Amino acid sequence: MAAFQMGSGYAVPMTLFKNNRDRVCKALLQQLQKNLKFDSGNLLVLLEGGKDKSLYNTDVDYVFRQESYFQYLFGAKEPGCYGILTINVRTGGVASVLFVPRLPEEYSTWMGELLTPAEFKAMYEVDEVYYLDELTDYLEKAAPKLILTLSGTNSDSGLTMQPPEFDGKEKYVTDCDLLYPILSECRVIKSAEEIEVLRYVAKVSSDAHIRVMKFIRPGKMEFEGESLFLHHAYSVGGCRHASYTCICGSGTNSSILHYGHAGAPNSRPIQDGEMCLFDMGANYCGYAADITCTFPANGKFTDDQKFIYNAVLDARNAVAETARDGVSWVDMHKLAGKVLLQRLKAGGMLQGDVDEMVEAGLSAVFQPHGLGHLIGLDVHDVGGYLPTEPKRPNEPWLSKLRFARVLRAGMYVTIEPGCYFIKRLMDGALANPELSKFINVDVFNRFRNFGGVRIEDDVLITQNGIENFAIVPRTVEEIEATMSSD
Amino acid sequence: MAAFQMGSGYAVPMTLFKNNRDRVCKALLQQLQKNLKFDSGNLLVLLEGGKDKSLYNTDVDYVFRQESYFQYLFGAKEPGCYGILTINVRTGGVASVLFVPRLPEEYSTWMGELLTPAEFKAMYEVDEVYYLDELTDYLEKAAPKLILTLSGTNSDSGLTMQPPEFDGKEKYVTDCDLLYPILSECRVIKSAEEIEVLRYVAKVSSDAHIRVMKFIRPGKMEFEGESLFLHHAYSVGGCRHASYTCICGSGTNSSILHYGHAGAPNSRPIQDGEMCLFDMGANYCGYAADITCTFPANGKFTDDQKFIYNAVLDARNAVAETARDGVSWVDMHKLAGKVLLQRLKAGGMLQGDVDEMVEAGLSAVFQPHGLGHLIGLDVHDVGGYLPTEPKRPNEPWLSKLRFARVLRAGMYVTIEPGCYFIKRLMDGALANPELSKFINVDVFNRFRNFGGVRIEDDVLITQNGIENFAIVPRTVEEIEATMSSD
Ligand SMILES: [Mn+2]
Ligand SMILES: [Mn+2]
Repeated sequence: MAAFQMGSGYAVPMTLFKNNRDRVCKALLQQLQKNLKFDSGNLLVLLEGGKDKSLYNTDVDYVFRQESYFQYLFGAKEPGCYGILTINVRTGGVASVLFVPRLPEEYSTWMGELLTPAEFKAMYEVDEVYYLDELTDYLEKAAPKLILTLSGTNSDSGLTMQPPEFDGKEKYVTDCDLLYPILSECRVIKSAEEIEVLRYVAKVSSDAHIRVMKFIRPGKMEFEGESLFLHHAYSVGGCRHASYTCICGSGTNSSILHYGHAGAPNSRPIQDGEMCLFDMGANYCGYAADITCTFPANGKFTDDQKFIYNAVLDARNAVAETARDGVSWVDMHKLAGKVLLQRLKAGGMLQGDVDEMVEAGLSAVFQPHGLGHLIGLDVHDVGGYLPTEPKRPNEPWLSKLRFARVLRAGMYVTIEPGCYFIKRLMDGALANPELSKFINVDVFNRFRNFGGVRIEDDVLITQNGIENFAIVPRTVEEIEATMSSD
Repeated sequence: MAAFQMGSGYAVPMTLFKNNRDRVCKALLQQLQKNLKFDSGNLLVLLEGGKDKSLYNTDVDYVFRQESYFQYLFGAKEPGCYGILTINVRTGGVASVLFVPRLPEEYSTWMGELLTPAEFKAMYEVDEVYYLDELTDYLEKAAPKLILTLSGTNSDSGLTMQPPEFDGKEKYVTDCDLLYPILSECRVIKSAEEIEVLRYVAKVSSDAHIRVMKFIRPGKMEFEGESLFLHHAYSVGGCRHASYTCICGSGTNSSILHYGHAGAPNSRPIQDGEMCLFDMGANYCGYAADITCTFPANGKFTDDQKFIYNAVLDARNAVAETARDGVSWVDMHKLAGKVLLQRLKAGGMLQGDVDEMVEAGLSAVFQPHGLGHLIGLDVHDVGGYLPTEPKRPNEPWLSKLRFARVLRAGMYVTIEPGCYFIKRLMDGALANPELSKFINVDVFNRFRNFGGVRIEDDVLITQNGIENFAIVPRTVEEIEATMSSD
């Protein structure tokens, strides 16, 4: 049985991708068959894999990462491929076909012995493998009545994927709109095999977080945490890529949601008495983790740090106890916000009626992002705002949500409540009488240089609740114990 | 004095980039002034900085790396900038102007407090900083007689950089051809300040190589070496990026010149008795290292391993003793090839007259790549085949050279002779009577599964010789001693 494996890392069976293909073909037939203008012959799905990307016009390429939809269906490591699913609409039979570049023989000097189509077929367990220059011939023989290509807009990035070009395209009936929402929806509900990969990459990422937590001390640089995380994930877990740029904020940097970017590259020395917010996730075989741990740099929480940390932890626990199949994600966001405000009130930072605070949108002052997001092959995974699903809410304190759906068993999401003290938002709240009336200004201002806390888990939605794949210390006691142990 | 610094890493003074700018402006005036159709007013150089690159249409960006020409002139970490040098052609006076994106205030929540133009000016020590939306106004006031933009083809990648677009371009006389060769030539000769950065990143990379060499043992995975190298370079040296994808080949993989690519991601367990060829280089403030160490997996050379290793080492030493200002790089390539063939003959693998072997091109059977390349901001640095310099040689065994120039003091190049046993090339040589007559087939075939050896240094060319910035164990004795120490 063929598999993807790095070292002693998890062996991802190629049946995972076969399963994905079967699921997509079934969904296509189910949803399209009635509207197809033919009841025999072939319906084709044609996907273009990712291509090598060079660093500007230099001789250096980025380390290749496969495009996620292509990875979902074919699990192929190599750049420059195409893939086809040929579906017989009468029988429902499917043939999976991978097209690989025909490289000049002399490339073997730089790339190693070139694999034959038969070797690719054995490696990826697809039905057929051809060279890319055979695509035109294949299409002529398959004589599809309709070719579905992939094009659509990512609701998180706003970026649109263009449909692929191929020789002879004009000879066929093609459609580039039908496939995207159906394929995206298939990616939302994880299969048993996908769940095991996600569990693995979350465990590797969790262990890496724990190692970083034990390592960090005042005087270390933020980027030393990033480096150690990446090293553990790769050398121990076989994860060559991170799923996103590591966010390693200390002190006030812990309140910068996307800290770690090129202009602020985790380059600050960590100080005694500060909080560290480290948001880092590895990637294995394309599948992502996305975990945040927040902890005191010196290993021991102050009372103020406990106050904010436990407020966020309570919000997280409330969601973890409530989320399950059938529950609305918007309600979970509201629940987390309400619990956070309750705890901030209990600690003396806020005053007045919590339900009124919620209605006034006060929670977005402290947590200006959504409660979490779908996760899978992409860290902000597809399927958030598909045409058939609830639209993005208009209320400012809900509009940052990356999806507004009812949770279903098999969904995989992050739960990541946070509480940050961000100058612009703090000043804005104090200047707005509708918000400032709830604020105990002295206590509030005491936290101006606090930074922030985020607790982010990766959880599988089940019929009865959730299963959390992020296995890291979460309570104050657990974190302090971890950081004081070797 | 403003500087770029990561942790306790080298503090790169911003005067480095000021120096670069002055050098370029001087070269432009020197080479263009006679042909300019104006003798007063402004000549402008306008460059576009690198932009953020997303991973397909997802919400994830690659970690940003600045475009090298822009880095050379402005040293700016941030994406989305433009830069201008305004040269008064009568006085020779220069104003350096950086244009930064005007980000919406709410971006501070994700990116941290937005820097003001004054803060950018202090950070990069340029003369003026404006927002990008002020570029049009700036140009109108500067009223340039001619705007030089950057466009040209990289002689290693074959990729062409397109000239930048900007509002109002049609109102000005622009030229996109003059700048590229002059700016590229400036990058070839390193300044004193650049040399110190290159020395630093080579030292960090050398130390990382040594750490990897001590760590590797039979049973380790190749990628564990990659991971440890990257971790040392980042956590100790502050190098967030590698200069190119790490090549960590063991056994026959050590003969694959660009091993480590996505299809062969350093994913093999290292075996006892094998050679390891690890080609890895860090990047600091844009500046590159490119170092290769080859060593036995178990720390002890066999006689066959010594034979090949010392043949390559002798070739390297011969070049190191001969290269200096005024010497032709093509001659150095020939010298390395000749010494290699001599040693292979002395060891019984070859027979006959060495000069005849050289003429027949036999060295390319063992080393199918050039002796080395210019290195600087790009690992394969620009300046190789500029219009004013010698053309790429036609002879097959010379045509892979990345430059064919006469060495000049201040050039920084790799010296990287190698000897590989590559099936396709071995079979080709045996099938070619012009080559096979020199080959002792039994000995030759004994090395079919040997893999390869490369020794790669990064050296500064001086008036009297070279200075080697790669400080790693090189002799058999040094390597064995390093690998047997803690
Ligand atoms: Mn997240
Ligand atoms: Mn090199």
